[in-house]
Amino acid sequence: MRVAIFFGSKSDTEVMRGAANALKEFNVDYKAFILSAHRVPEKLEETLEKVEKDGCEVIIAGAGLAAHLPGVIASKTILPVIGVPINAAIQGLDSLYSIVQMPKAIPVATVGINNSYNAGMLALQMLALKDEKLKDKLIDFRLNMKKKFIEENGEGVEL
Amino acid sequence: MRVAIFFGSKSDTEVMRGAANALKEFNVDYKAFILSAHRVPEKLEETLEKVEKDGCEVIIAGAGLAAHLPGVIASKTILPVIGVPINAAIQGLDSLYSIVQMPKAIPVATVGINNSYNAGMLALQMLALKDEKLKDKLIDFRLNMKKKFIEENGEGVEL
Amino acid sequence: MRVAIFFGSKSDTEVMRGAANALKEFNVDYKAFILSAHRVPEKLEETLEKVEKDGCEVIIAGAGLAAHLPGVIASKTILPVIGVPINAAIQGLDSLYSIVQMPKAIPVATVGINNSYNAGMLALQMLALKDEKLKDKLIDFRLNMKKKFIEENGEGVEL
Amino acid sequence: MRVAIFFGSKSDTEVMRGAANALKEFNVDYKAFILSAHRVPEKLEETLEKVEKDGCEVIIAGAGLAAHLPGVIASKTILPVIGVPINAAIQGLDSLYSIVQMPKAIPVATVGINNSYNAGMLALQMLALKDEKLKDKLIDFRLNMKKKFIEENGEGVEL
Amino acid sequence: MRVAIFFGSKSDTEVMRGAANALKEFNVDYKAFILSAHRVPEKLEETLEKVEKDGCEVIIAGAGLAAHLPGVIASKTILPVIGVPINAAIQGLDSLYSIVQMPKAIPVATVGINNSYNAGMLALQMLALKDEKLKDKLIDFRLNMKKKFIEENGEGVEL
Amino acid sequence: MRVAIFFGSKSDTEVMRGAANALKEFNVDYKAFILSAHRVPEKLEETLEKVEKDGCEVIIAGAGLAAHLPGVIASKTILPVIGVPINAAIQGLDSLYSIVQMPKAIPVATVGINNSYNAGMLALQMLALKDEKLKDKLIDFRLNMKKKFIEENGEGVEL
Amino acid sequence: MRVAIFFGSKSDTEVMRGAANALKEFNVDYKAFILSAHRVPEKLEETLEKVEKDGCEVIIAGAGLAAHLPGVIASKTILPVIGVPINAAIQGLDSLYSIVQMPKAIPVATVGINNSYNAGMLALQMLALKDEKLKDKLIDFRLNMKKKFIEENGEGVEL
Amino acid sequence: MRVAIFFGSKSDTEVMRGAANALKEFNVDYKAFILSAHRVPEKLEETLEKVEKDGCEVIIAGAGLAAHLPGVIASKTILPVIGVPINAAIQGLDSLYSIVQMPKAIPVATVGINNSYNAGMLALQMLALKDEKLKDKLIDFRLNMKKKFIEENGEGVEL
Repeated sequence: MRVAIFFGSKSDTEVMRGAANALKEFNVDYKAFILSAHRVPEKLEETLEKVEKDGCEVIIAGAGLAAHLPGVIASKTILPVIGVPINAAIQGLDSLYSIVQMPKAIPVATVGINNSYNAGMLALQMLALKDEKLKDKLIDFRLNMKKKFIEENGEGVEL
Repeated sequence: MRVAIFFGSKSDTEVMRGAANALKEFNVDYKAFILSAHRVPEKLEETLEKVEKDGCEVIIAGAGLAAHLPGVIASKTILPVIGVPINAAIQGLDSLYSIVQMPKAIPVATVGINNSYNAGMLALQMLALKDEKLKDKLIDFRLNMKKKFIEENGEGVEL
Repeated sequence: MRVAIFFGSKSDTEVMRGAANALKEFNVDYKAFILSAHRVPEKLEETLEKVEKDGCEVIIAGAGLAAHLPGVIASKTILPVIGVPINAAIQGLDSLYSIVQMPKAIPVATVGINNSYNAGMLALQMLALKDEKLKDKLIDFRLNMKKKFIEENGEGVEL
Repeated sequence: MRVAIFFGSKSDTEVMRGAANALKEFNVDYKAFILSAHRVPEKLEETLEKVEKDGCEVIIAGAGLAAHLPGVIASKTILPVIGVPINAAIQGLDSLYSIVQMPKAIPVATVGINNSYNAGMLALQMLALKDEKLKDKLIDFRLNMKKKFIEENGEGVEL
Repeated sequence: MRVAIFFGSKSDTEVMRGAANALKEFNVDYKAFILSAHRVPEKLEETLEKVEKDGCEVIIAGAGLAAHLPGVIASKTILPVIGVPINAAIQGLDSLYSIVQMPKAIPVATVGINNSYNAGMLALQMLALKDEKLKDKLIDFRLNMKKKFIEENGEGVEL
Repeated sequence: MRVAIFFGSKSDTEVMRGAANALKEFNVDYKAFILSAHRVPEKLEETLEKVEKDGCEVIIAGAGLAAHLPGVIASKTILPVIGVPINAAIQGLDSLYSIVQMPKAIPVATVGINNSYNAGMLALQMLALKDEKLKDKLIDFRLNMKKKFIEENGEGVEL
Repeated sequence: MRVAIFFGSKSDTEVMRGAANALKEFNVDYKAFILSAHRVPEKLEETLEKVEKDGCEVIIAGAGLAAHLPGVIASKTILPVIGVPINAAIQGLDSLYSIVQMPKAIPVATVGINNSYNAGMLALQMLALKDEKLKDKLIDFRLNMKKKFIEENGEGVEL
Repeated sequence: MRVAIFFGSKSDTEVMRGAANALKEFNVDYKAFILSAHRVPEKLEETLEKVEKDGCEVIIAGAGLAAHLPGVIASKTILPVIGVPINAAIQGLDSLYSIVQMPKAIPVATVGINNSYNAGMLALQMLALKDEKLKDKLIDFRLNMKKKFIEENGEGVEL
């Protein structure tokens, strides 16, 4: 497993699937865990230790409301932690602020509200720092995305 | 010690003094600790255990930015935890949302932004549930506050 | 009755049921009242006096919009008052700010928007300060919550 | 006295002076009271009854933070109540929402943040409904304001 | 006609009906006009003059988005103008700020978002300044509201 | 005069100077007027007519708070109107929303908060649609801006 | 083609149709392109050059979320660029701020959230600076709008 | 050079120094560039290509207002891009939303407002994925931070 995906509640499954989808597209091993910073702090710590031992290199963590999960994980590892704010109230701003406004020296790499696909993509970009094949795939992916975008939207659309 | 006051950084000392002041006015024993949920999680846990053993009944916790300290403490104890949002950015709204929007079953009793005095007062009101003398003092305090307010502001003011 | 639950309008019943549910789970006596700070101020005052005489120890109050009910109650008692902001407009921020930003010396212990279950839980934590049996039940509850959470979410989930 | 001005704290005096200034410009009798809805609810009620007996026709009430004063007054009288949100935190938005978002049937006529002069002006416009002389003065005032504005700013300015 | 109700678009009809309902309950004459400050400024001015001649004493104006209608009316009359912010985007905050934040000397008496009933009630309270019968009716209305509230909600509810 | 600059109060002079500065850099004739939509509506209308007769092609209007000036002007002309939100309260958001959220068919071309220089630049870009010399100057200006930027900031800076 | 309409994703088509509708009403030639600043930056640049060569005079660009498209276009042309914030999250405020708060010297003429019709109208007003016929049509349009508004809404409505 | 730091204006130098400081503490090579996405897009592209050729592995980009720089860079590289929102208006929320709310597949790893030190730290954590020595240093750094925190704040503080 190269990426571990954590989220705080079964109800966040659909939002977080985007992260898994990005990783699957690139055949990158990941494992997903439902673990709450507030409900099962010891289990979270234990699982974190285990995934680090299993070779995990990047962590993705999603949470809603007072979203402490990404920050709590970031405080217990020096692996890069990517945070996904989930909209469960006030348009997701509670979660965004709870994740992005981390104190000095304990960063969380925050992506857009409910945008877990981008968390997966960011994890891939980090892994590509040491994985030339993945880097090439990402370059191809971008080129294909461009090509497909241009094919689909052509030289102008009817409006 | 009946109340433990936690906050995450020396720079929050002035804001948090209000909580201590409220407790001092009622001669209620407290101890204050600078402990960060993100920087020293193990020390926080250890101190929490110690204050509980020493008879602490209510916990006050203040933090700014992505303010996880009150929520992280609340997840590790069933003592009531009072959270003080501290304004360190965006008017303190990041801290307020990070503290008040806790998930189901792990509440933090949140007071106003920078209003640590109210955290102290709330702790006193909780302690008074089992302390008749303190209850009487609180009733007196309110009466005196009223009396003083009326004396100071009289039957109308010049404007 | 150990807890009194107040809310300002029949339309808030469903949101406020969470508080009752938390108290029922622990067999703690409560009574609920629909009483508006603005519509029936005298009846509110009268009922407050009655519930205090009947031994009420903690008060829960929920309201939406310009949510004055929790603060008005807090100004008339030294029992701890727990405020539940209810989302009736602008995502509940009007209610949150109206409840949490109380002036010096009259705190309201505010929980998350629409999160009345947490108000009930917080009331239980306060009552446990003088009730060893309840304290033990709360400790058990947390342990069971953990156990159940881990059972349900196991050692990782499909994503 | 035709207008009563209430505000919750001596520290609001400077902000509230604008209301008095507007009334003085039109020689309309007013009286000002520092009275807090939370600190001295009984005194507030007593004073309200007194000012109504003394012929008060319009009430102006200013408050900051969880600004309940205007709404609490509005719930106890059918005189029109004008609310002045005062900026004491989060740019005055807590106060604005606490004042303007009143429930059905208990309105507060809200003016701009810290804009107590407009509260005085609005009171004058209400009083003019039954006071032809005041109405004429208001019409003159507007005309003079226009004249003065045009004199001062002429036919274009250097920039 | 004692009250004129203005609003900017047919689509606001349902929201603004509340104002008419309040006036109808008290048999107060009103007339309603759909008139836009931006689309038909001359017609607005002409109608304003006409309603003033017809004895109109209070004006209610509702608008959404960049809600200039209440303020533009207020700049052209010294009658009290009551503004109703209508939620057409960003939760109605654009409209609220556009109405309540009027400059010095040109106030708009602002009520809650979409709360046109309160605009009607506020108009009644203003008219009652010179109409003893209406004043008595308003006092009765409040008493009945209280009585009905207490009857409906009794001495506590099931929860 | 090709551009008319309007603003509502002498206190906005410094903020609005940026618009004039942009126009001066390109030797484009402009005139500036302090005129309030609320205080001197007739004078505003009269001046608008006059500037249109004098050949004005683009209008810039700046205002703070409930900033109606740009929208009111836009409703009275089919010349393009550029709105400058001015920060006088709540970070300028009241002004921004009052200007940008105009109803269907009456647009205001809104620039950033306090950013009157951009209003001037936008006016120039509009005028360049029919003025080849100005167009060439704008292209030169951009090229020089680039050149100067690169010269000043070179091939990397010390940090 | 006199106007080019750009937007970043097929899913914005319905929102952006309003711009085309405004241009069609006035028989002004336009072309629409789906082009993303982030996905196909080179194609965007190439298309921009092409539309400029084809005589395009005004550009309309709509985008949601972190809406860079209008600003990126504005940085590559001195034609006036009109930005349409699209609501895809947090009520469209992310998009509004990303578009309107452009740095010094690179303005985007921003219209209301989702209000692409106004972008079309603003483009017409700009084109009318050098097109007397279009100017006359715009004046007629306004007069007809007024006439129609008055016909539809008459001398008052039932409420 | 392993890290490239970009920011849009000389005035952001002080805020961005934090990123450099973090990298210096770990003796990681970096270079800093003042380059604006809007003012010098071609130079930005050219410099990006150059830093990639020079072996740059992680990019840090800070900007205020409509902060497009991080997103524009992210669209042109598959290296991980870390975005620093800078507070230049409305508390930095314009910049935060402009950076974090990127569209699908083009993420920016966003840190807290003005918190460039955390951008540096996050870059280090990414580089440590392939640099065992740096990983060990980061682990040491965390341990020292803990030790120092505990030494400084001891077993409780005076309050």
